[in-house]
Amino acid sequence: MAQSPEFALIQRHFARLGAARRDVTLGVGDDCALLTPPPGQQLAVSMDLLLAGRHFPHDTPAHAVGHKALAVNLSDLAAMGAEPAWVTLGLSLPEVDDHWLEGFAKGFAALAEQHEVALVGGDTVRGPLAISVQVHGFVELGAALRRDRARPGDALYVSGWPGEAAAALPHRLRGERGGAGSALTHCSARLDYPTPRVGLGHALRGVASAAIDLSDGLHGDLGHILEQSHCGATLELEALPLSTQLIALTGSVEAARTTLLRGGDDYELLFCVPPRNEEEVHWLAERLRLPLHRIGTLEPQSGLRLRGADGQIHSAEGGSFDHFSH
Amino acid sequence: MAQSPEFALIQRHFARLGAARRDVTLGVGDDCALLTPPPGQQLAVSMDLLLAGRHFPHDTPAHAVGHKALAVNLSDLAAMGAEPAWVTLGLSLPEVDDHWLEGFAKGFAALAEQHEVALVGGDTVRGPLAISVQVHGFVELGAALRRDRARPGDALYVSGWPGEAAAALPHRLRGERGGAGSALTHCSARLDYPTPRVGLGHALRGVASAAIDLSDGLHGDLGHILEQSHCGATLELEALPLSTQLIALTGSVEAARTTLLRGGDDYELLFCVPPRNEEEVHWLAERLRLPLHRIGTLEPQSGLRLRGADGQIHSAEGGSFDHFSH
Repeated sequence: MAQSPEFALIQRHFARLGAARRDVTLGVGDDCALLTPPPGQQLAVSMDLLLAGRHFPHDTPAHAVGHKALAVNLSDLAAMGAEPAWVTLGLSLPEVDDHWLEGFAKGFAALAEQHEVALVGGDTVRGPLAISVQVHGFVELGAALRRDRARPGDALYVSGWPGEAAAALPHRLRGERGGAGSALTHCSARLDYPTPRVGLGHALRGVASAAIDLSDGLHGDLGHILEQSHCGATLELEALPLSTQLIALTGSVEAARTTLLRGGDDYELLFCVPPRNEEEVHWLAERLRLPLHRIGTLEPQSGLRLRGADGQIHSAEGGSFDHFSH
Repeated sequence: MAQSPEFALIQRHFARLGAARRDVTLGVGDDCALLTPPPGQQLAVSMDLLLAGRHFPHDTPAHAVGHKALAVNLSDLAAMGAEPAWVTLGLSLPEVDDHWLEGFAKGFAALAEQHEVALVGGDTVRGPLAISVQVHGFVELGAALRRDRARPGDALYVSGWPGEAAAALPHRLRGERGGAGSALTHCSARLDYPTPRVGLGHALRGVASAAIDLSDGLHGDLGHILEQSHCGATLELEALPLSTQLIALTGSVEAARTTLLRGGDDYELLFCVPPRNEEEVHWLAERLRLPLHRIGTLEPQSGLRLRGADGQIHSAEGGSFDHFSH
């Protein structure tokens, strides 16, 4: 737990941040937080470490950094179908910048309140800008959406319009800013303010057989499901959802597809649905007002295949986004 | 959760690290860990962020870094009287150094196994060396040792021989290494391999009124208890436990006292005991084979006073260790 001056700093910006919850007996300010998990539920826990220049461009506004640091973790809970509850925050800051901290705390708090998440602990130290966030959520015993339960014959779905965040990244790294209403401005907002699909994840319990969130790109993240579920898949190239902004920013349908397959940072959900539950997915898309695209099918044969409009199988080359490459 | 190459790296060194626990349904490898808290207990959660050069000297062996990263967090659980269970680990590494990772994982694992802690999740990224650790433990409802429950009249105790870690730090920062059996070698081991007082913390439930672990130094950490319990204290200067190694390394009794009061990083427990429970403390010290020193008394009058052998009250100046000063 944070101490003395850092502690005062945390207290000012982060005390009572987020939702007030009855299951928090003791929050920030002692050696540990004291929490009361609901009886009969499992605890879902995820942690992410975010570095400036690696997980978000250096010029990202503090408010967006605060939002994104929590969003990527809520997205992990969403991918398990868990209901968010508590979060802890570790901050390494090059300096005690009150203005930056205020923006960060506001971005973090707005999303926390939206999902009724309480900040229950943290630590702040001086160092290179780095953010460590850990979330805790609840899910009924046996109801979690795991990566290893997909089966051949299941349909493969993806939510929203993946690829837009990755399309914005190279422009942002060159310091470009889009004009009002431009494709770059639209895609930039998706990079800075990803929407964790918490409601969708929750609704998919009992409907989907497996799920994962798109942090490394569709190709790489689908690979995790296929590997852990011991099956393969064929993606329908024509069914990949390409937004007009994605095509505009990447310059062509071909480039848009590559960006969608290889690019990360979207935090949409990729999920598998047994045929008997597919009708439920159509209904869910309407209820959540969120496009859910059927993009392929799981098969017994291992490996990933891409099928074009001509029925031909194309290569499935292309790696995922890699935080250790450059 | 970690993905692709980092994921492979984590898997190799960190999969199934620490104890195997029946309450871990799903550990490292999915979007979240799935855990089953024991019914009727509270969850105690603490997180710490450790940076090279700030929380441990740059020349600290990887094995010691792994030990210390977990130890400082277990120490927070100890200070609450909680029983350790699960841990998550975030690692920012300048390079994928297999040798360093192996040493780190071994140091971390040895302590985790000793306390039956399972590693359930993590994230690894490339960046400046930084370590984020979060521990989860259990404590019966209402039994946790909080900072805000000390009362005037309680006796003040400290475990072990605090000050030794802080005495070693300036020497280590100058690159000095002690010879075999030297005071520096002894104190260096206390800096690199602090012992979290988990057994003591557990035994103090129902005995101590309040507790804190010494991370910022006795003066600063006692200040947290006094502030949150709304009382003051008088420390008996002659009662402060000065080890022969501490006196040898600092050069005088006076310097040893200052180091003990101001220096941090000891992770001994400072705790308050109502008079009716003091006999129990003597018994505990024998059972745990751990010296527990009575160093002062809590009083209604706010502030901290130091009383010398002459009965005179000395100034209580001297701040705590501050991760933001330098």
